[in-house]
Amino acid sequence: MISKSFYAHHSAFGAFSSFVIGKCGKGGGVVLNDVRPPENNVYIGYKRDGVINLLPFIKDDTKNAEEEFTGEVSTSKKEKNIKIFREDEMERELGWASDTWTAGKFRFSILTPFGYVKDPSVMNENEKKLALAPVIFVQLSMDNSDSHKDAEMIFGFEGPKRILSELTDGKYLGGVYGRKYGFAIKKSDDVRELSRLDILTSWANDNYQNHGLGRAPSLIFKVPAGTKKTYTVALATYQSGVITTGIDAEFYYTSVFKSLEDVLAFGLDNVDYYINLARERDEELRKSGLNKYRQFLLAHAAHSYYASTELLKRTDGTPLWVVNEGEYIMINTFDLTVDHVFWEMRFHPWTITNTLDLYYEKYSYKDQAGLAFTHDMGVADGFSKEGYSSYELPNLTGCFSYMTHEELLNWILTGSVYAIKMNDKEWLKKNLSVLEDCFDSLVARDKNNDGIMDVDSSRCETGSEITTYDSLDESLGQARNNLYLGVKTWASYVVLHGLFKENGLEEKAKKALEKAKEAANTIVGKFDTENQYIPAVFENGNTSRIIPAVEALVYPYVVGYTDFVSEVGVFGELIKVLKKHVMTIMKPGICIDEVSGGWKLSSTSKNTWNSKIFLCQYVIKDVLNIDFGDKEIEWDRVHAMWQQVSCSEDCATDQVNSDTGSPRGSRLYPRLVTSILWMK
Amino acid sequence: MISKSFYAHHSAFGAFSSFVIGKCGKGGGVVLNDVRPPENNVYIGYKRDGVINLLPFIKDDTKNAEEEFTGEVSTSKKEKNIKIFREDEMERELGWASDTWTAGKFRFSILTPFGYVKDPSVMNENEKKLALAPVIFVQLSMDNSDSHKDAEMIFGFEGPKRILSELTDGKYLGGVYGRKYGFAIKKSDDVRELSRLDILTSWANDNYQNHGLGRAPSLIFKVPAGTKKTYTVALATYQSGVITTGIDAEFYYTSVFKSLEDVLAFGLDNVDYYINLARERDEELRKSGLNKYRQFLLAHAAHSYYASTELLKRTDGTPLWVVNEGEYIMINTFDLTVDHVFWEMRFHPWTITNTLDLYYEKYSYKDQAGLAFTHDMGVADGFSKEGYSSYELPNLTGCFSYMTHEELLNWILTGSVYAIKMNDKEWLKKNLSVLEDCFDSLVARDKNNDGIMDVDSSRCETGSEITTYDSLDESLGQARNNLYLGVKTWASYVVLHGLFKENGLEEKAKKALEKAKEAANTIVGKFDTENQYIPAVFENGNTSRIIPAVEALVYPYVVGYTDFVSEVGVFGELIKVLKKHVMTIMKPGICIDEVSGGWKLSSTSKNTWNSKIFLCQYVIKDVLNIDFGDKEIEWDRVHAMWQQVSCSEDCATDQVNSDTGSPRGSRLYPRLVTSILWMK
Repeated sequence: MISKSFYAHHSAFGAFSSFVIGKCGKGGGVVLNDVRPPENNVYIGYKRDGVINLLPFIKDDTKNAEEEFTGEVSTSKKEKNIKIFREDEMERELGWASDTWTAGKFRFSILTPFGYVKDPSVMNENEKKLALAPVIFVQLSMDNSDSHKDAEMIFGFEGPKRILSELTDGKYLGGVYGRKYGFAIKKSDDVRELSRLDILTSWANDNYQNHGLGRAPSLIFKVPAGTKKTYTVALATYQSGVITTGIDAEFYYTSVFKSLEDVLAFGLDNVDYYINLARERDEELRKSGLNKYRQFLLAHAAHSYYASTELLKRTDGTPLWVVNEGEYIMINTFDLTVDHVFWEMRFHPWTITNTLDLYYEKYSYKDQAGLAFTHDMGVADGFSKEGYSSYELPNLTGCFSYMTHEELLNWILTGSVYAIKMNDKEWLKKNLSVLEDCFDSLVARDKNNDGIMDVDSSRCETGSEITTYDSLDESLGQARNNLYLGVKTWASYVVLHGLFKENGLEEKAKKALEKAKEAANTIVGKFDTENQYIPAVFENGNTSRIIPAVEALVYPYVVGYTDFVSEVGVFGELIKVLKKHVMTIMKPGICIDEVSGGWKLSSTSKNTWNSKIFLCQYVIKDVLNIDFGDKEIEWDRVHAMWQQVSCSEDCATDQVNSDTGSPRGSRLYPRLVTSILWMK
Repeated sequence: MISKSFYAHHSAFGAFSSFVIGKCGKGGGVVLNDVRPPENNVYIGYKRDGVINLLPFIKDDTKNAEEEFTGEVSTSKKEKNIKIFREDEMERELGWASDTWTAGKFRFSILTPFGYVKDPSVMNENEKKLALAPVIFVQLSMDNSDSHKDAEMIFGFEGPKRILSELTDGKYLGGVYGRKYGFAIKKSDDVRELSRLDILTSWANDNYQNHGLGRAPSLIFKVPAGTKKTYTVALATYQSGVITTGIDAEFYYTSVFKSLEDVLAFGLDNVDYYINLARERDEELRKSGLNKYRQFLLAHAAHSYYASTELLKRTDGTPLWVVNEGEYIMINTFDLTVDHVFWEMRFHPWTITNTLDLYYEKYSYKDQAGLAFTHDMGVADGFSKEGYSSYELPNLTGCFSYMTHEELLNWILTGSVYAIKMNDKEWLKKNLSVLEDCFDSLVARDKNNDGIMDVDSSRCETGSEITTYDSLDESLGQARNNLYLGVKTWASYVVLHGLFKENGLEEKAKKALEKAKEAANTIVGKFDTENQYIPAVFENGNTSRIIPAVEALVYPYVVGYTDFVSEVGVFGELIKVLKKHVMTIMKPGICIDEVSGGWKLSSTSKNTWNSKIFLCQYVIKDVLNIDFGDKEIEWDRVHAMWQQVSCSEDCATDQVNSDTGSPRGSRLYPRLVTSILWMK
């Protein structure tokens, strides 16, 4: 770890909720239907010999809550002896499915088990419960074996309002916030609840009388002298009823769990299953062969990805998958879907078709060129009206303009990659005609037959289309005559060619290959032989040099169309110039930031995006076979530092400044799971 | 108005939600299941001739939200010409059921209709809908008749996320926050929706293109040149599902409305009914004969009272009434119930028995002396466990100790006052034996037969009981040998005497009168003839002088037992010494604050409570027939100033410092409706 002080999300699959802690001195807590860290006091630690030792997640303990409540200065003020661990007194390890702090003989872990999840429509009841329970776990351990003093550990945080035993006839101990979230452990003589206005003062003074007005109902665990103890606590969320607008939907888990208490009980009954699942994932990452920085980056990405996931159930009972767009909480933003496909193919491929189908069903439209798709499906649990995103507006040339061409590519690439790689013939059969329509629409957007886009959607009215790199700089923003989008268009033709061919559409297959060749020729023709690069935009003398020129090579490659991305294949020239382009630009002052040493996507902007860096790292190394040797681990170190230090208050962050790594946008973001590509 | 800049709650009956605005420069918005003002931008005003004129409820308009969103500096920054009204450019009038700002030819009103509400168990469906719809209204008016320029008015605020037309097939226009709250008007050519990240910039530049990412979906109303226009908008909240713990309950209105849209539609369909109801209440207050300060204080109290009300439905379908305790949100705090009885007898007497019955059913207990009641029923929608409050703790002598004796008096007085005054024979029949048990318990707490309490509840363990004035000072805090509680005990015996007598319990009636006499004799015996007052506590040489000595005279008086509170009646001596007491203490430096000129409840504390001042003002004037002449309006002015100036950020506030009027506790509080006693 470069730093131990950074926020991380800790979330169950599809529950759109997080327990967020990790930034020292900042507090944390549970957030529902959002991803922003609540800054409440979190009490994790132990008491021994009259001293309370806590992890540094207390935001403010200077106020006397009882005095504040009564408006009077208390005459019975009690002393408390509290020590907050400094960063250098702790270790922290972020695993793929865990986050662990160790301070001396005390250890605290948050376990966020995840694994392969089947399509819920083919699961039985118990499979659904195991896979979809909105529950995570925390573990507290203390080795008090060489001590002669009894100790106690504590777990609690502000947010929950009451102790759980009162609601469960004493069967469970814990704390709950209404019926919406809480934590629990089974009743035992070794554990008790404590809730007070000033919990630390009470605990410090051995006052275990619970107060109904308490602010942070906590669990207190016994660790007698001479013993070593571990306690595991379930932490669950539960939201009932229709929580969306535009499309009516409830959380899917409500069909198998009837309440928060139900989820907590199930979690505790199946604690071994979940802990093993988390351990399995942790071990897989540990044995992946990835360097420590990449292990961290992939783990951090996974934590924020799951924080943004939301599995809903429509009124007809069918599942509705949502990945929310980090701090922007737009629904299934298509530019993210296409990047999440690598992760989702590994862990839950049915979510990909779930999203694609809804895009076709409700979030597609026809413009002057043919079939097209919206940028997103709405925002903040509000599904937008049919055929419209929440993001796009007409009459613009920059941010918030339409991304018609790019979203068309995204449907083609996401669908094709899924269909070929997962070999889902049934879905493909249903959607082959959609892919044909997509192809026709794509062709219609190339009026001058140079293989790349030159027609803006009529939806733009007086404006013009942008790309997903909308806010980066003009080198990546404009859609027409754009190198990044040109290669992505080429890649779409290539995968469509293969798909059409394999499915007996010979004519279309042939035409797709021709279009791919036109695109390749156009791009190769823009290669500046003197300076050995391709300019980002083929207009107005643009000289920006961009890494995402190679991004789209990933699609033919992952589906096994390796000949098409080979220097000796039919597109050998294109691949050769892209390799030259890469060798030219991956230098300090061009696409390596001179200050930080990290990657910058464009030579003309400091705005750089981690998810795309990770994706392009994969392409450059695995597809283009360019080995930068020891430079790689140094770059990884810089990118890990951006997350752990510069973006420490924003969980996994995509857009940063390439010199400082400071966050610039796309905070608390799911897209960094493109790093799954690093794993073999 | 002394000041126009103060927050006020604006709430529907029993919906536990508020639209809170009124403090200049502070913003506002909608709060659910709480009473704290959200500090969001609120957009209310008009645009004419390129200038936007707004009421001063914008918190912060310096940020460029579009730039912030994209992380880029916009190249298309637009100018906007905005004028925020200064306090001296506006008029404000707080009515009993309205709140109106006038600035030149622009007027904005919030209408919060309320009136007599029958027991819902005897209402038909339509009566339920009319009485329980969680809806209030806002009205915008502009006289543009002498202008040659068209104008537009705006209403919107941050919180809602999307425009309503998309969810209602265009039938309604407005803005909604999920399915939980929103505002609406019927579709018309004169109104349109506008939602943008920077709504003012868009509006200023005549850009009416809606953006799905907009932050404050607003309504824009046309006011053509030469016309005068008024528009009425419904503002509703809706929360579905079980929202409590301890006792499972939903909002009662969910049994007659199926969604937010349903409530909004009903509100608009019945807008005339509601507006008339609000006008009727406003007129009643205006014609009450109360001076302007008292009219304000009663209106302000009503606004905060309704903000704290919550009508629930238990799983068996029966109504469950809750008044939440302002900022503390404790459930049906008994010390408040007894003060709310005067208001509730006028507007919804069935809520009184609803609360009393639940106290007896679930929140009573037996200590060593007999039947007793808890201080409250829980906190923050969490009903506490049977027989326990959220507030009380053992082993204390100050705040958070038990209030057993006082809560016993509260059940007796609330029940007796209700039964006698409302003449509810059926309820009395069911509860006469409870009142007998209460009487026995009360007697058992007086071991030395001096009529007043001398035995602390065994629930206190090593501690001792306190009174509702827990946090005031020791002169009012301790229960034993306490003047305030002594007179309240006397009053309980007096009303029990009458009640028992009227219901054929001759023995008990006789004994109650004897106990009342014992109490009266004890209190009279403590009269300090030299200094002409009764000390607050009959122990340790206490010399505090307190106004609430006379508080409990209200109970025999309001039920018509006027002989008992007469100087020539059986308790003439007691009444005489209490009058002398009042004449002694109502002087600057004793119970009139020398700095502010306002009332202070105790000569030895600056902590003074408005609800109790209002109650005691009534007792002193109406029961004791003491007329302070012109002093009264000056006192009222001071008390109004405390609310409008010193407590301007806290809506109706109970506990203030008597010198400055600054809030000390009990903010955003319902109890100030004791001022209803002022109305004849």
